[in-house]
Amino acid sequence: MITQYEIILPEFPRGFHLITQRVLAQIKGLPQTGIFHLFIKHTSAGLTINENADDDVRRDFASWMDRYVKENEPYYLHTIEGSDDMPAHIKSSLVGSSISIPITNGKLNLGTWQGIYLCEFRNRGGQRKLIATIYGE
Amino acid sequence: MITQYEIILPEFPRGFHLITQRVLAQIKGLPQTGIFHLFIKHTSAGLTINENADDDVRRDFASWMDRYVKENEPYYLHTIEGSDDMPAHIKSSLVGSSISIPITNGKLNLGTWQGIYLCEFRNRGGQRKLIATIYGE
Amino acid sequence: MITQYEIILPEFPRGFHLITQRVLAQIKGLPQTGIFHLFIKHTSAGLTINENADDDVRRDFASWMDRYVKENEPYYLHTIEGSDDMPAHIKSSLVGSSISIPITNGKLNLGTWQGIYLCEFRNRGGQRKLIATIYGE
Repeated sequence: MITQYEIILPEFPRGFHLITQRVLAQIKGLPQTGIFHLFIKHTSAGLTINENADDDVRRDFASWMDRYVKENEPYYLHTIEGSDDMPAHIKSSLVGSSISIPITNGKLNLGTWQGIYLCEFRNRGGQRKLIATIYGE
Repeated sequence: MITQYEIILPEFPRGFHLITQRVLAQIKGLPQTGIFHLFIKHTSAGLTINENADDDVRRDFASWMDRYVKENEPYYLHTIEGSDDMPAHIKSSLVGSSISIPITNGKLNLGTWQGIYLCEFRNRGGQRKLIATIYGE
Repeated sequence: MITQYEIILPEFPRGFHLITQRVLAQIKGLPQTGIFHLFIKHTSAGLTINENADDDVRRDFASWMDRYVKENEPYYLHTIEGSDDMPAHIKSSLVGSSISIPITNGKLNLGTWQGIYLCEFRNRGGQRKLIATIYGE
């Protein structure tokens, strides 16, 4: 059994955002056992799984990323789309464009502290399209 | 065909550890063709695939990670769980919380030098829970 | 339905290379709905999804990687395979050894600007083996 959903997220500000509940709200039932795959159709944003409780964790993620993948590096060649664009591409590949989570007993088998993050790396990223693919039995 | 296993790893010291054989020892048979998915239910540890022969590679991974994702950065806000906690969250998203490996002719189709690493980023991470999900035919 | 292909890439120079069309040329049909999984059987190269239009993006990826995962760090222990080897292992785990892309209406459901990158981190990496696993219905 395979089901698939397109999920359109409204524009989020630059930063890391917990979207677990927002994503699950669009899913009509999960198999007993399987995999939940979530993909982002963009190259300047990403998806990751991390701590779901303290907003400060998500702020610290953004702080670290901005210091290690800097804007305006003199060696960047791809600069025409703004100073936040090339760093956004690099950050996107560091976190990745998809996550996959086991489904057990009809639910996402996440750890207690795990949630799904949208990683928005542009200043004005606009709406973001995700594809959820669920397979199992 | 989908099968799933919960695997509990004993506490490992902070660092990168080869766990391929330990994980496979808990799996009762693989399909002829498919995918082996392994997920860690924690936000301060990760999973990755890398060199399986030389312990020094795993030590160098830890050295690089500690230098580029530092403890006690003055800009960290999330500090109450210890100086190793926020770096552990960042490192976890850099390597990722799952891996997936093709299954071919009833075996993991890893390259000669590839093995599965547990990436333990806490000083005292405790036991770690993994979920293996295997699908194929 | 599961199908699997071994794809052998010729040697590419060190850097990031768009391989979407080269990979798809070897695939004989996709299911209507499913997942396309691509895995690289090496520990000094990687796969990622990123911008498919401007070569400069791929050059900037290489520049950033070379500055943040340096050769000849005095603390590296694993040095016998050349100065590009240990950085290649680290870079490989930062981007990852597999990607997975949803299949929708019989096609890869990539965003407009998304393509598949081979990330070649060795100076002379030689041929690279990929395994494509496709499941769906």
